Amino acid sequence: MKLFIANQNYSSWSLRAWLIFSQFKLEVEVTKLKLFTEGFYNALEGITPTAKVPTLVDDDVTVWDSLAILEYVNEQYLQGKAWPSSTVEKAKARAIAAEMHSGFFDLRNELPMNIRALRKVELSDGARKDIARIDAIWSEQAEQFPKGWLFGEWSIADAMYAPVALRFKTYGVELSDDAAAYQKKVLASTSLQHWLEDASKETDIVEEDEAGDEIG
Amino acid sequence: MKLFIANQNYSSWSLRAWLIFSQFKLEVEVTKLKLFTEGFYNALEGITPTAKVPTLVDDDVTVWDSLAILEYVNEQYLQGKAWPSSTVEKAKARAIAAEMHSGFFDLRNELPMNIRALRKVELSDGARKDIARIDAIWSEQAEQFPKGWLFGEWSIADAMYAPVALRFKTYGVELSDDAAAYQKKVLASTSLQHWLEDASKETDIVEEDEAGDEIG
Ligand SMILES: N[C@@H](CCC(=O)N[C@@H](CS)C(=O)NCC(=O)O)C(=O)O
Ligand SMILES: N[C@@H](CCC(=O)N[C@@H](CS)C(=O)NCC(=O)O)C(=O)O
Repeated sequence: MKLFIANQNYSSWSLRAWLIFSQFKLEVEVTKLKLFTEGFYNALEGITPTAKVPTLVDDDVTVWDSLAILEYVNEQYLQGKAWPSSTVEKAKARAIAAEMHSGFFDLRNELPMNIRALRKVELSDGARKDIARIDAIWSEQAEQFPKGWLFGEWSIADAMYAPVALRFKTYGVELSDDAAAYQKKVLASTSLQHWLEDASKETDIVEEDEAGDEIG
Repeated sequence: MKLFIANQNYSSWSLRAWLIFSQFKLEVEVTKLKLFTEGFYNALEGITPTAKVPTLVDDDVTVWDSLAILEYVNEQYLQGKAWPSSTVEKAKARAIAAEMHSGFFDLRNELPMNIRALRKVELSDGARKDIARIDAIWSEQAEQFPKGWLFGEWSIADAMYAPVALRFKTYGVELSDDAAAYQKKVLASTSLQHWLEDASKETDIVEEDEAGDEIG
């Protein structure tokens, strides 16, 4: 399999898709493209109709969306084990994954993923509401942490929310104790540590994803 | 199963989820709530944390997002047959369903679903781009029409794009011949006809979803 991603410092959707390969040690050839450059669009031409990453190519299969990639890999290579096994929990995991995939626009706009930065931002009411909802989603699963993930075993829901744990760090967002316990677990995980290590080697600045005032 | 939906004239996400029940003649008790009213939020309190429709309740399972509902019903009641059976096509169907679920914001903003209306709107460049992309998605499957759906048999991808066929009608959007053939098929389908019939009985006006100038 071949996975196209973008700048690891900035590309939250890339991280979501990449995590399933890392968590389950699935072999994948990763091609990293620089956001908003000619090389980015050239590399994706003829491969994905949307010119976005993540995009997965697996022989004659092409999938050009994070959630679709996660579902595909789960079915084709993991016998479904990247969703919780209980029907009730799987339905809930899918609903919260879908919330992330289709929403939280204020959070995504005002607090772009920017791993290397430490920033102060003014939050809109919408962003505050997004943060409160995410805090509630995480806290509701509190009995799982620190041992387990949102639904015990790692699942696609954890992939969807991983970039948020990073954003909350960059912008110093205060969380309830339960939500903070989940954030801590995500940030300390081996997969994320590998991503952070690679991200830390990048030096490109993507102006579109720079928000807030430097701290200190 | 119980499905909460909103005004059938306006609620595009409700339509998407409702279609799978109609297409496969699955029994479901539909509760229709009026958008942006107190009754809407009261009815959903304690059921869904996001206060949005569609929301499905199936015994101890609650699912509060259209795509998550479609995936759930497909797995629990349809042995997976609401996705194409070929792996390549299923991956593609999932990618285009995900495009709709997570994108086309300009189209969604500027051309809100409003079944009973016939309107003229000024389109932004973004909306034009969205329309062109949807035209391309539909046209690429042209060999299927008029006999088949996007992937031959009806699939979740068809559910995701059905409201767009209605929007293109309301705002008189011109399509390529191939895309127009798909639009025609969607509009003539039995399921959609049933929805339209129920929608036509509604008289409430939702200002938030009124756009453009009346034609004629
Ligand atoms: N819904 C898509 C969103 C993908 C997306 O927006 N990717 C960004 C990078 S994180 C991108 O490719 N941007 C390039 C562009 O818009 O030109 C998904 O879930 O994969
Ligand atoms: N991502 C959700 C979107 C659902 C949505 O936005 N539903 C609208 C009606 S079409 C709603 O409930 N709006 C009520 C509100 O926002 O207060 C889905 O796919 O189901």
